[in-house]
Amino acid sequence: MSKFISQKLNELEAYVPGEQPQDRSYVKLNTNECPFPPSPYAQRLARQAAGKLNLYCDPECGVLTSVAAETFGVNKENIIFTNGSDEVLNFAFLAFCDKDTPAVFPDVTYGFYPVFAKVNGVPYREIPLTASMEICAEDYFNAKGTIFIANPNAPTGIALSLDKIESILKNNPGNVVVVDEAYVDFGGESALSLLNKYENLLVTRTFSKSRSLAGGRLGVGFASKEIIADLNKIKYSTNPYNVNSMTAAAGVGALLDKEYFEANVRAICENRAYMTAGLQKLGFTVLPSSANFIFAKKDGVSGGELYRSLKEKGVLVRYFNKARLTDFVRITVGTKEETDALLAATAAVLEEKL
Amino acid sequence: MSKFISQKLNELEAYVPGEQPQDRSYVKLNTNECPFPPSPYAQRLARQAAGKLNLYCDPECGVLTSVAAETFGVNKENIIFTNGSDEVLNFAFLAFCDKDTPAVFPDVTYGFYPVFAKVNGVPYREIPLTASMEICAEDYFNAKGTIFIANPNAPTGIALSLDKIESILKNNPGNVVVVDEAYVDFGGESALSLLNKYENLLVTRTFSKSRSLAGGRLGVGFASKEIIADLNKIKYSTNPYNVNSMTAAAGVGALLDKEYFEANVRAICENRAYMTAGLQKLGFTVLPSSANFIFAKKDGVSGGELYRSLKEKGVLVRYFNKARLTDFVRITVGTKEETDALLAATAAVLEEKL
Repeated sequence: MSKFISQKLNELEAYVPGEQPQDRSYVKLNTNECPFPPSPYAQRLARQAAGKLNLYCDPECGVLTSVAAETFGVNKENIIFTNGSDEVLNFAFLAFCDKDTPAVFPDVTYGFYPVFAKVNGVPYREIPLTASMEICAEDYFNAKGTIFIANPNAPTGIALSLDKIESILKNNPGNVVVVDEAYVDFGGESALSLLNKYENLLVTRTFSKSRSLAGGRLGVGFASKEIIADLNKIKYSTNPYNVNSMTAAAGVGALLDKEYFEANVRAICENRAYMTAGLQKLGFTVLPSSANFIFAKKDGVSGGELYRSLKEKGVLVRYFNKARLTDFVRITVGTKEETDALLAATAAVLEEKL
Repeated sequence: MSKFISQKLNELEAYVPGEQPQDRSYVKLNTNECPFPPSPYAQRLARQAAGKLNLYCDPECGVLTSVAAETFGVNKENIIFTNGSDEVLNFAFLAFCDKDTPAVFPDVTYGFYPVFAKVNGVPYREIPLTASMEICAEDYFNAKGTIFIANPNAPTGIALSLDKIESILKNNPGNVVVVDEAYVDFGGESALSLLNKYENLLVTRTFSKSRSLAGGRLGVGFASKEIIADLNKIKYSTNPYNVNSMTAAAGVGALLDKEYFEANVRAICENRAYMTAGLQKLGFTVLPSSANFIFAKKDGVSGGELYRSLKEKGVLVRYFNKARLTDFVRITVGTKEETDALLAATAAVLEEKL
């Protein structure tokens, strides 16, 4: 830290992303990436864009926005594209929270939310999950703040029904409800169908998971045209050209290649069932996941211990050193082969403990 | 604007980037892009990265940072890469300004600075350029704020000598001095050589101009390791994966292909001399430019009038509707052919006025 740092940032602690080790090759099941490469069509469009990088990208992401409007059945004015969905989430904290309007989110959820609140200098309130690690919708009624709900939630993987999401929207007419649908394609119910009904709804999505573009950085927000205008105000006040040309092109390909997308989602859902059954056979409790990861624990083995033992065996999973989470590990659903490697390594760890 | 917007953003006016018209083909000399495509090597590396986008990019931009350290003769800990240089500039406003430490910059400079100040909720003070549109270094001594100097300045194109930059650093030991070197490769003197001498120096650069990567979005900051740590704190609190894999790869190619880079810079400097001479022959006053654009005016023709007339003839230049600037147009230096088109169109506009 320099002696020049501003008051606001003095005590900030940054988010710690999952390890991206460059030293050796792991079976990498720690950052919820998709095990399949981007659609060949997405790759081709991205490569074509590389030749024209001397020109600025289109700040409105015109082509991509048109394709997204068609794909998701919304109007172009209801869409904003960002440099990953972290950026649209960060914009939402800045746009819709202030000292009188705290951010409100579960105590167990995407670990970036409290960091976004702090960096934007806004207060936040955490609402505990139930004993079964679920979001209780009623706890969010009249929350007097801007609500952030990851659906399915992370790192639990548990989804909230569309009815429950709607009840939260209905009971917070004066505040924005952000539904972070990073993982929705793997089994959740999207709130996009409620877009025309609730002016306080902002749905965010990422291309990092089901669309295989984590390294490309592409996120999107869907909302009323007024909310989108607010978010664009921030985009145009910080980084108007936030989505580069190659990524915008890749996004077009990823949306248009529906068959590839659907096949990948299907494969991951199958592998999730296979991984869940395998871990249950080893004595694990696995929370019911609607995401591309599972959250699992076993009596007698702490999450940290399992994480370290698996890493020694060349398998990376994620462990959270946080109240209520220390028993668990979060494991990304990879290919069948990666799942077999995870199950074999886990069995070996348990055997060594005996 | 929605009824949900936060107090802070309520009155914010966003930056308006230069037009990126999608409707027809223009001789596009309005956003200071490089007329030459990216280095073939940069293109090849970007294309290779497209196949692995399912994996997250390296938040530390390890390879790119190593190559930059070598290229610019600094240590890796003195470097941060961002999604365009707008992002590192925005980070600097957040990191080093607060209510007691205003931002300080010229009244005529990169139009984004006041917007960054407003979006970050920090005060700012503008110091007038001299009558000859130059920065007077002494005006910045003991400025009691965080100083932002574009060198060469925009939209004037006029550079400040390294001695003068050093005098500003020396006379503001308690505050950060940001030297925005977006255009330095076209004739300015870089402050990078002062990095080890002044702990209050932050140099920013972009790959959008001399490196032909405007559409890729790549910026970089150089400073003491403490200042870089502050900027990384913001990066890791808002968007750790801010630079996508394809752009990071393109950046490596752009830095390593020195010959291509140098040839392009040489060509642009030659074309700048040619454009300047041509406009002077038509009766224009052209400020002495060290950038890849020129700032020019002619008695009897307003900047707005010339901008509109040239646009009708298919040539886009930039015009600023702002005090002291309304007489001028800013024209990007393009290829020889583009320069000929600009000169011919300008001559035709003047003739029609007679």
